[in-house]
Amino acid sequence: MNSLLGKTNPSSLALIPVLFFFQFYTPAWGESKADELMERANQVFGRLPPVIASEKNSVTPEKVKLGKILFYEVRISVDGTVSCSRCHPFSLYAADGLRKSIGNRCIVNSRNAPTILNAAAQISEHWIGNRTDVEDQARQSVVGPPSFGMSAPEEVEKKLKEIKGYGSLFKEAFPDDKDPVTVDNLAKAVGAFERTLVTPSPFDAFLAGNQNAIAEQEKKGLRAFMEVGCATCHSGAYVGGQIFQKFGLIEPYWKYTKSEAIDEGRFALTKNESDRYVFKVPVLRNVAKTPPYFHDGSMDDLETAEWIMGKAQLGKDLSKEELGDIKAFLESLTGRIPEDALKLPLVPSME
Amino acid sequence: MNSLLGKTNPSSLALIPVLFFFQFYTPAWGESKADELMERANQVFGRLPPVIASEKNSVTPEKVKLGKILFYEVRISVDGTVSCSRCHPFSLYAADGLRKSIGNRCIVNSRNAPTILNAAAQISEHWIGNRTDVEDQARQSVVGPPSFGMSAPEEVEKKLKEIKGYGSLFKEAFPDDKDPVTVDNLAKAVGAFERTLVTPSPFDAFLAGNQNAIAEQEKKGLRAFMEVGCATCHSGAYVGGQIFQKFGLIEPYWKYTKSEAIDEGRFALTKNESDRYVFKVPVLRNVAKTPPYFHDGSMDDLETAEWIMGKAQLGKDLSKEELGDIKAFLESLTGRIPEDALKLPLVPSME
Repeated sequence: MNSLLGKTNPSSLALIPVLFFFQFYTPAWGESKADELMERANQVFGRLPPVIASEKNSVTPEKVKLGKILFYEVRISVDGTVSCSRCHPFSLYAADGLRKSIGNRCIVNSRNAPTILNAAAQISEHWIGNRTDVEDQARQSVVGPPSFGMSAPEEVEKKLKEIKGYGSLFKEAFPDDKDPVTVDNLAKAVGAFERTLVTPSPFDAFLAGNQNAIAEQEKKGLRAFMEVGCATCHSGAYVGGQIFQKFGLIEPYWKYTKSEAIDEGRFALTKNESDRYVFKVPVLRNVAKTPPYFHDGSMDDLETAEWIMGKAQLGKDLSKEELGDIKAFLESLTGRIPEDALKLPLVPSME
Repeated sequence: MNSLLGKTNPSSLALIPVLFFFQFYTPAWGESKADELMERANQVFGRLPPVIASEKNSVTPEKVKLGKILFYEVRISVDGTVSCSRCHPFSLYAADGLRKSIGNRCIVNSRNAPTILNAAAQISEHWIGNRTDVEDQARQSVVGPPSFGMSAPEEVEKKLKEIKGYGSLFKEAFPDDKDPVTVDNLAKAVGAFERTLVTPSPFDAFLAGNQNAIAEQEKKGLRAFMEVGCATCHSGAYVGGQIFQKFGLIEPYWKYTKSEAIDEGRFALTKNESDRYVFKVPVLRNVAKTPPYFHDGSMDDLETAEWIMGKAQLGKDLSKEELGDIKAFLESLTGRIPEDALKLPLVPSME
């Protein structure tokens, strides 16, 4: 305005009312646009609960306490090196940074380890949904060959009973059980702990009404995320995790990823032709902190992963700008790990 | 006294003055005996410092912060699974519970992993003293084949530089260095963190003057520990860690241990005949929490380990009572891990 008025040119002075009009109008228009974005985002995503409740497994402080201790227990694995924390260290946002996880005796697992943060809210666990819930995931990890490698629940229970301190901890967590030291209760305790792993982020503050909680580029990215089509699958409070979808709706995924082999996805589980190359849509909360990406961890770079999703799922060649904006939005999903989960427990001693 | 007086027998009444004498005398005698034990214990052991200082590596908050983060860094290991925390998880009192540690690509290490709690105070690190200090131990772990398995310092530095957030953390910890992201600085940072890992225990409260800090059996065990001869080697504030000694002074150790092979100890390093079967005398702080025992982790049970030490080192067949008392004393060495060390850090992300 200063430079304009400085010119004192009658013809430009005639513009002043128009400029003033825009000056008053613009913020109002911007605000309504911003409110509309917030409203739409609330419809598409929605709010996080404080704890991910379960009808089958109530989240009690005693179970959570035991579950957190068991999360670090290596002595119930066949070679004494595997705990839940091995593939889900909180220092790396509860993923392990590997393309594919490495379990007991250096067994390479078949797929990338997803973070367990917010994982309890999913339709099912693991990439092809072959674990019904976090409790099932914990149980199958302990007795399954690739991770803990124990041959039978009884073997795990024997080891647990050898570690004296667990008796009272299980009893406190499962007071109605006569013989509470069981793998099923281990799974319930670890599951209860995982149900507390909800990670509110700046995006949630935005959803709750704080326009300043996320920056302009993050809002642009959020808008693009919804308009381009990402949010069709990555929706709900967890920005994913609620449905299964074919990876490669438009073109085969391996055309773009650096996959070493073709994974048939959920077909391996169901043998339904319609499940070929179908995977669970992953939760995108904390995605910026949990590379590498995809079921086989074949991609290190987030923007490239976004571009591949655009090509293979939506048939769109996302621009550099869109990729940057969407990445900024995804970074606003990096949340706060519950403080208590970041406090290391001491596991009971043998005597 | 009541039953005695109830009898009103003149001959027993004559005993009353004698009994009263003992009643008054006993506590005074007990106290002086207790004070003498406390005094002797202070001479043999001595007080813990708040931090284990080093002339070569000052312990600054910035180094400690970086060191704690690096302690959980798996991405600088050759297979992405090894961090310091793998063999020294705080949940198990910074030892791993294995007979011999398992490093990258499932390499079985040659000896049991000692706890790193209080370890910085030792004459040198590892069982045969082939690491000069905690900084050297950290450095050699990262570039050595058995643990992290990286081929050269440059390879580690390359990986560190790929993880963006480390640049500023190293700069803050080593402000005078032009290119601070080096393995030597990694070693200094991890070393500085380890120098804070001092674990005061009930025994220290006793040494400081609180007679009630440890129970009677623990005092009996302390007395036995000094009188039997254990404290000849396991002395100083850390109850060990200050000298090397032959394992099997009286009889070959493998006569009693469940060792699968004979380890020549420090001889492997020095090739001096006098170093055959010589090992560093381990720190006994937190020993009750860090089974299995001995350089090869061949013994699970603490009392049996004590008995073997008696036989092989002192030529004594310790009684069941002495073993129990000494174990009670050793349990009083279980200390408090610094609270800050138990708070998990988040490691920097790749971008």
